[in-house]
Amino acid sequence: MSFTYEPIGFIQSPFKSKFGVPRQPGLVESTALLRIDPPWDDPLAFRDIEGFSHLWILFHFHEVQPREKWSPLVRPPRLGGNNRVGVFASRSPYRPNSLGLSLVGNGGVSRSGNQTILTLLGGDFVDGTPVLDIKPYLPYAEALTGARGGYAPTPPPATLPIHFEPRALLALETIEPSLPGFTTLLKQMLALDPRPQYHSDSPDHHYGLPLYDYNVRWRVDQGAIHVAEIESHEAFLARKSTPDSRE
Amino acid sequence: MSFTYEPIGFIQSPFKSKFGVPRQPGLVESTALLRIDPPWDDPLAFRDIEGFSHLWILFHFHEVQPREKWSPLVRPPRLGGNNRVGVFASRSPYRPNSLGLSLVGNGGVSRSGNQTILTLLGGDFVDGTPVLDIKPYLPYAEALTGARGGYAPTPPPATLPIHFEPRALLALETIEPSLPGFTTLLKQMLALDPRPQYHSDSPDHHYGLPLYDYNVRWRVDQGAIHVAEIESHEAFLARKSTPDSRE
Repeated sequence: MSFTYEPIGFIQSPFKSKFGVPRQPGLVESTALLRIDPPWDDPLAFRDIEGFSHLWILFHFHEVQPREKWSPLVRPPRLGGNNRVGVFASRSPYRPNSLGLSLVGNGGVSRSGNQTILTLLGGDFVDGTPVLDIKPYLPYAEALTGARGGYAPTPPPATLPIHFEPRALLALETIEPSLPGFTTLLKQMLALDPRPQYHSDSPDHHYGLPLYDYNVRWRVDQGAIHVAEIESHEAFLARKSTPDSRE
Repeated sequence: MSFTYEPIGFIQSPFKSKFGVPRQPGLVESTALLRIDPPWDDPLAFRDIEGFSHLWILFHFHEVQPREKWSPLVRPPRLGGNNRVGVFASRSPYRPNSLGLSLVGNGGVSRSGNQTILTLLGGDFVDGTPVLDIKPYLPYAEALTGARGGYAPTPPPATLPIHFEPRALLALETIEPSLPGFTTLLKQMLALDPRPQYHSDSPDHHYGLPLYDYNVRWRVDQGAIHVAEIESHEAFLARKSTPDSRE
């Protein structure tokens, strides 16, 4: 027995790859657009949705490659990547069915040409995420007081200090006017420490984080993040083709 | 493009049909069992789940027949069945993809023979519901204070007075010892007024509500529910085959 679902639309998001995406929605001030496909784009399907401040988005983890072998344990980033918990005690994307569930702010429905667009506030979606359903958040049933949150009782700390080096600052001056909020979003993402679970601790190791059409190069030195450079994706790709590229 | 998912298990629930099932989880004190199928039944997949007091169950609405034509509007019971809202502003089972989402209490994982069983508290699942995923409820991200709940800001009223007629009382005396909580659950379900949206208001009209292996016959007269009879499913079926059956 199996069930087949079709996407009702796809998400356009500043997060261009899994790397650096906040590990839960609501942790950063991001805005994403959910573009609804026909026939589900009928504006009637959204009637009265404005009364709900928050929405559930059910989606497919499209960037997750199915593993050859089923693994019942996962290593949540919350536990430093060293401790393993059961997959059903986690929100890991590596699950028997690649179904994701995210709570987002309702940024409203709009029409652009023939398209119906739902604006999602605070989401954690990789660009291009296929969406299967939208449901209203029901505070009376779902805003539980006194629920226990296991090994993740509080939000993850977002405390890493961030230093922008001169070239990065210069880039921000150019980018921010055309993408208002870019700097805030980048700071919020980096403060959450988006390093992979098994990371090099060498201060020379540079990471690349894709955000909108830019690639952000940064490293960690003495507990602080240093942003070396923010370059357009084109410049990044050109540099990547040189033999001594670092990423 | 489409996505195919396999059930990880099936729910065993006292609710034997859609009729009478509370329209949100948490409204009645029901207990259901989620029987996990191999290979997902590995107890390791549930490690540390006991730290979470509540769980999300993602499931397939298996009792919903796909409609021939897509309808962007639904009539939520909450609005008396007379007002239509967009399907994405509702939790109706009639949706583009028949995906359900319910928040339940975590009643613990147990092993019975070779089976892994998760006990679900307060669910609103029809017996036999196929489950696609289990995720922990994250209070820090999902217990929102100040969220707006549109046309459903508070729980539905559960205020209908209930009278048991002598034959029904007699039946309860027999049933309750073998199914502790049956009476409370039945009262809670009936108080929520499980009548279909377009109901006859005739005090002579009897409804049948299947619960565990019983059928409950009741009617509404002058704003109160009168339970006429609680009979075993076998007796119910035998009576149904007589020509003057009412249901």
